[in-house]
Amino acid sequence: VERVGIGLLGYGTIGSGVGKLLRDCADDIRLATGKDVYLRKVLELPGFTHPDLDPALMVTDFREIVDDPQIDIVVELIGGVGAALEFERAALLAGKHVVTANKQLIAQHGAELFDAAAGSGARLRFEASCAGAIPVIKALRESLAAAQVDTIYGIVNGTTNYVLHAMTETGAQYDEVLKQAQELGYAEADPTEDVTGKDAAAKMAILSSIGFHSRTTLADVQHEGITSITAADIHHATSLGYVIKLLGVAKLIDGRMNVRVYPAFVPQDHPLASVAGAYNAVFLESDTFDKIMLYGPGAGSVPTASAIIGDIVSVVNTAPGGYVQNCTCYKHLEFFPNDDVVASFYVRMQVADQPGVLAQITPILGEEQVSIRSVWQSGRGDTAELVLVLHPTREAAVKASLERIAALDCVQGPPAVVRVEGEEPR
Amino acid sequence: VERVGIGLLGYGTIGSGVGKLLRDCADDIRLATGKDVYLRKVLELPGFTHPDLDPALMVTDFREIVDDPQIDIVVELIGGVGAALEFERAALLAGKHVVTANKQLIAQHGAELFDAAAGSGARLRFEASCAGAIPVIKALRESLAAAQVDTIYGIVNGTTNYVLHAMTETGAQYDEVLKQAQELGYAEADPTEDVTGKDAAAKMAILSSIGFHSRTTLADVQHEGITSITAADIHHATSLGYVIKLLGVAKLIDGRMNVRVYPAFVPQDHPLASVAGAYNAVFLESDTFDKIMLYGPGAGSVPTASAIIGDIVSVVNTAPGGYVQNCTCYKHLEFFPNDDVVASFYVRMQVADQPGVLAQITPILGEEQVSIRSVWQSGRGDTAELVLVLHPTREAAVKASLERIAALDCVQGPPAVVRVEGEEPR
Repeated sequence: VERVGIGLLGYGTIGSGVGKLLRDCADDIRLATGKDVYLRKVLELPGFTHPDLDPALMVTDFREIVDDPQIDIVVELIGGVGAALEFERAALLAGKHVVTANKQLIAQHGAELFDAAAGSGARLRFEASCAGAIPVIKALRESLAAAQVDTIYGIVNGTTNYVLHAMTETGAQYDEVLKQAQELGYAEADPTEDVTGKDAAAKMAILSSIGFHSRTTLADVQHEGITSITAADIHHATSLGYVIKLLGVAKLIDGRMNVRVYPAFVPQDHPLASVAGAYNAVFLESDTFDKIMLYGPGAGSVPTASAIIGDIVSVVNTAPGGYVQNCTCYKHLEFFPNDDVVASFYVRMQVADQPGVLAQITPILGEEQVSIRSVWQSGRGDTAELVLVLHPTREAAVKASLERIAALDCVQGPPAVVRVEGEEPR
Repeated sequence: VERVGIGLLGYGTIGSGVGKLLRDCADDIRLATGKDVYLRKVLELPGFTHPDLDPALMVTDFREIVDDPQIDIVVELIGGVGAALEFERAALLAGKHVVTANKQLIAQHGAELFDAAAGSGARLRFEASCAGAIPVIKALRESLAAAQVDTIYGIVNGTTNYVLHAMTETGAQYDEVLKQAQELGYAEADPTEDVTGKDAAAKMAILSSIGFHSRTTLADVQHEGITSITAADIHHATSLGYVIKLLGVAKLIDGRMNVRVYPAFVPQDHPLASVAGAYNAVFLESDTFDKIMLYGPGAGSVPTASAIIGDIVSVVNTAPGGYVQNCTCYKHLEFFPNDDVVASFYVRMQVADQPGVLAQITPILGEEQVSIRSVWQSGRGDTAELVLVLHPTREAAVKASLERIAALDCVQGPPAVVRVEGEEPR
């Protein structure tokens, strides 16, 4: 039986999980590939030990991996965009296939890596970089290769999904829920990457690149986080028949891409609304297949290790030749400007509780061609809360009208604005 | 560029859709495979014409396909288990890869076809046979190859899902909703295969074979349909926090398989509960990846044609050698007896509205070791409706106790029984 040697970079939680699955599932992998896939070397820091790791396999110099002709696949799990980039590029240039979970590296330096792979014929796989064990990249790249995906919605950050879900269940404010999530281990001590949407933005850069066959990098993905979502917004969402989700939204509009991350109202009967807790989901739309959703754990060392094994199997089983096998980004699509995107909006503002407020606000909306779908106002002593849901409108028009409205004397503080996504066209 | 010739058997709705995608997406397919995949011949009945079909491609004798060295892949879309079996087997034996949407053929004669494929090294693909365009077979076979799936829940029949959903929305009875579904085209004029669960059973035979790497045929899958579900059951499901779904349920219990189709109560917050209308979903559980759900259109000619194209790309891109590439059923698992399955149950019965009814029923349950989780009784004149939800219990015990209860004078007619699935263990 032909042997396939694995060189593993990093033996932390996920790396040791990969090592364990390679041992425990050796028979399944042999039957899946017809080859004997085995762990040949592990790169770790000098002095590193792990009860599961045979010290004879450990090396501390990457050259021992890249120069080893018995290593066919390099699995990069050290993270970051420094040494990881150098190692992955060197491996690909040397003709070794690379499997990684490193989302920031693919989102920021995917182009260089794809080019290195295309040059040598090596394969680059990164299923675990987005949405954990959910095989969404494989589905987009292979099953739906000819399916013309036009919309990708992603709930791709478990921390923010957990926080928004808990805010909805308890009615508590953001700060309070985040603190609890940190205590329970659902949020990092420094949750910045998660709550600002940067983590989700990296994943959407990858998903939109694969889904649209073009190239989106982290810098192309404008992202808003969930830090400004209040208990009042959650309350109104529920009353209006929505849930708030931090969505990655990638749309193909007139042949151009718009890729962003923002909190959004999603109808309660939309499949994405039922994605609770720390789970992830990717929802795809296309004229060809209608709607497909893939749902599962977004993180966790065992699901991630399982996705790495799936990629290893895929690398071994892939015939050489297909261009897309190495570089799926063969189109060069432009980006569609945010201002021209047509969307529905929820708007909440504090106004003086006095007659004539609506009479000042509605003409501005009319002048900017923004039409109101529904409006609620409830007094609270001196001030009232005014909630509007707007019909689909160009974003620039909504922005312009809200700037004018915020400048009115009767309006207190900047309006809260959340997009509405996932409604069927009427 | 290397060319890959397709021989298409049947140019009906799906076949012509495949022809159209092969033309329209030729560039995407070339980029995905590195090869020029083209329609070489179409088998149809003498005299057949179609505005999209070049008559020069049409043949009426299968030998012109199987003997053509330029044909690498045979796509079988004629359906049935007669000529289709003969053609697929002959193609595989001749070393031609086969792609099909024929679920009954794979569910009933998969073994013969897998054997033919294994002998010649040809590949057999049938993503479109289960759950339309949802890439569930690819996910099970490739991404989750080493993931030890232990439970597969499938909403794999769009007709019954539509009917149950409409019954829930409207409160109407089964017959009435079925009639409407037929008028709207969501149910066939003869809906027997759908409403009895036979269609779902064939799909579960396929999914459990791939998921558990063993062999399940249609005959191994006991199936109950939805014809006995009443508006009262729907009403109680809603009140108790459930929805009723026709579920395919495949479980690995102590290393043995239990594969069935039956209506089941599913908690309203379970992801499967939000699968509405004619959509399909497959929900997978494993210690490795926790829970994964794949959701999408269960039928429709364009989604099905898209799944066929995905299979063609997969066949072209697959390296030879992997045993599983041809035959994923390399284990020989026994079946786990239904009587020994432990499950929760909902039970509804008509009883005389008189004192002492519960006092007659509860001792029987106690003697059979069946424990009650909750009970409701509501009078309706002379009779009362008694609804029980039972704690997880061996099926044989539930069956035995209900037989004794049905024989009581105070109980009128046989009790309605529906399993409860998808609850987290307490």
